[in-house]
Amino acid sequence: MLDMKHVYGVIMAGGIGSRFWPVSTPRLPKQFHDFMGTGESLLQQTFRRLSQMIPAERIVVVTHQDYAALVAEQLPVLPTNNILGEPLRKNTAPTICWAAFELQRRDASATMVVCPSDHLILQEQTFIQTVHAALEGAAGNKLVTLGIQPTRPDTGYGYIQYEPNPAGSITKVRAFTEKPDEAHAKTFVESGEFLWNSGIFIWKSSVLLAEMVTHSPEIYQIFSNLFNSEFKASDLAEAYTQCKNESIDYALMEKSDEVYVIPSSFGWSDLGTWGSLYHQLRKDDAGNATVGKYVVLSNSKDNLVRMEGDRVAVIHGLEGYVVVDTGKSLLICPLNQEQSIRKLSGDVSINWGDRFD
Amino acid sequence: MLDMKHVYGVIMAGGIGSRFWPVSTPRLPKQFHDFMGTGESLLQQTFRRLSQMIPAERIVVVTHQDYAALVAEQLPVLPTNNILGEPLRKNTAPTICWAAFELQRRDASATMVVCPSDHLILQEQTFIQTVHAALEGAAGNKLVTLGIQPTRPDTGYGYIQYEPNPAGSITKVRAFTEKPDEAHAKTFVESGEFLWNSGIFIWKSSVLLAEMVTHSPEIYQIFSNLFNSEFKASDLAEAYTQCKNESIDYALMEKSDEVYVIPSSFGWSDLGTWGSLYHQLRKDDAGNATVGKYVVLSNSKDNLVRMEGDRVAVIHGLEGYVVVDTGKSLLICPLNQEQSIRKLSGDVSINWGDRFD
Repeated sequence: MLDMKHVYGVIMAGGIGSRFWPVSTPRLPKQFHDFMGTGESLLQQTFRRLSQMIPAERIVVVTHQDYAALVAEQLPVLPTNNILGEPLRKNTAPTICWAAFELQRRDASATMVVCPSDHLILQEQTFIQTVHAALEGAAGNKLVTLGIQPTRPDTGYGYIQYEPNPAGSITKVRAFTEKPDEAHAKTFVESGEFLWNSGIFIWKSSVLLAEMVTHSPEIYQIFSNLFNSEFKASDLAEAYTQCKNESIDYALMEKSDEVYVIPSSFGWSDLGTWGSLYHQLRKDDAGNATVGKYVVLSNSKDNLVRMEGDRVAVIHGLEGYVVVDTGKSLLICPLNQEQSIRKLSGDVSINWGDRFD
Repeated sequence: MLDMKHVYGVIMAGGIGSRFWPVSTPRLPKQFHDFMGTGESLLQQTFRRLSQMIPAERIVVVTHQDYAALVAEQLPVLPTNNILGEPLRKNTAPTICWAAFELQRRDASATMVVCPSDHLILQEQTFIQTVHAALEGAAGNKLVTLGIQPTRPDTGYGYIQYEPNPAGSITKVRAFTEKPDEAHAKTFVESGEFLWNSGIFIWKSSVLLAEMVTHSPEIYQIFSNLFNSEFKASDLAEAYTQCKNESIDYALMEKSDEVYVIPSSFGWSDLGTWGSLYHQLRKDDAGNATVGKYVVLSNSKDNLVRMEGDRVAVIHGLEGYVVVDTGKSLLICPLNQEQSIRKLSGDVSINWGDRFD
């Protein structure tokens, strides 16, 4: 029987969500917004989901230090010292390594459930059951990740090749792959041997740190030094300056032999782009997904229209676009060309920084 | 030699400009906006243009009474009692008839130069010369209108058939026509016998009223009764309630034998639609006309984009649209389907009246 007393949640909430401009801005990124119109931000959804298994005292949020106040505001029940503010963005390996040391310090038997703050999970009970299965694996000193059963050959996700297991339970990972091209994605999905990489990880902090020693000693050593002293804010900044910018996938998962995956299916989306949000929203008969009280669409189909606040939109003769108006900024772009948004919003940022965020 | 002392300007400023939604709203219609980015509203442009011939004391503005304060605010040099506030919108025949009686009362020798407040005239000196020629005609007791030499088979304008006159000066009108279909418009323009109806009229108020007696006795009688008493506001409201809703074209111009036209060419547009505004604005190499400080267009052409204030727009992959964002409302519509705007903005008005204006 699993002892839940040593289970900790780790929510990673440091991203800037540049592909969701203009709603997501460096000042108020994606995870702090209510993208689904549920009344909760994605961070609040993630926190509430974990709270069904883990009390707030054992949930930590790692974020950029600039967002620490925002996290505190959105999660008033979270103890303040459970907010870990990173001085620099150095990707997930340093984030997770810091969290592991911090939890290890608090509880030598800690097991971590690591989740991105800005993903969507529609079937919460199935998610919780899946995490419990993963926790059993973690109890056996495995590094466990949740791999999503793919429903289409999406080129926006990384894939995990695994050893298919008829029981559908925990199984060995063969390889992590980068985002594939369309032909590869199709082959992956048809083979039945690939899952989407969800970025959700379950492991004992002691096991994670032991594996880091082997596969990512530089990052490990930086945080080890930090935790062997009584560290000050300036030490943390210095540690992050020294850290390589590396994902946990690259730093550890692709290298370790202890990596297992649970094939999962709980209505997951990384909400990585306006297009993936469009897929999740309710559409009218013409395929238009509308967020906003005063939106008129005529002779238009397959659009995602989001108007903030009480603003009126009248849209005629438009097909397949994302239209987002925050009151401060307007984006109009074909949904199938949204890879341009990151670049364009970057240009806006460079030219008119003060207008951007 | 023309005696300018008896020449009066009459600016008609009562329209609601519904085809320019969302910038133009019933609360602040088209004529009060700076559509050309010149720093002057269309009304202010019209007033300044007439002021080059006629002092402010002899210019009257007829508008809906709800806009009287706006007119006073935009034209501070205009004497307050030169603003005639109509209690109801009853089209141009009552408007002009009231103005004629009012000027006749002030000056039995008055000649009126009647102009819409919301048109564009680029070549002001040519306009002034043309009006002077028209005033000569009016001195001979003619009803004179300015007819614009057509440059394309526009179906958005009424046309005036005339007797071509090699000298290019004043000539007899054969017929007024409604807005034609495309085939007719083409025939009209190719024939060389048709001009666009500008809605600019020059005549003695006494001659106008005498012609109204013959051709539009009902409207004439209503205002005649009004001016034979010491009329109060309630009398004016009652008079307007009785008036038919009729254009001066229908009530008089199409019926009178005394109607002459001066073929004209002074960079005129009625700015009747976003499309006609698009034709007047400066375009970039891709044919995009942009009003706004922070507009990024990429892979886009032949659009009219107007962002009010300091708002940012990022538009990718759009062609041939009007995009107007007032901060309160957003319109997106193909420029060649803009006849839909009036209907759509009407729906908005009906459903969400308080959001509309």
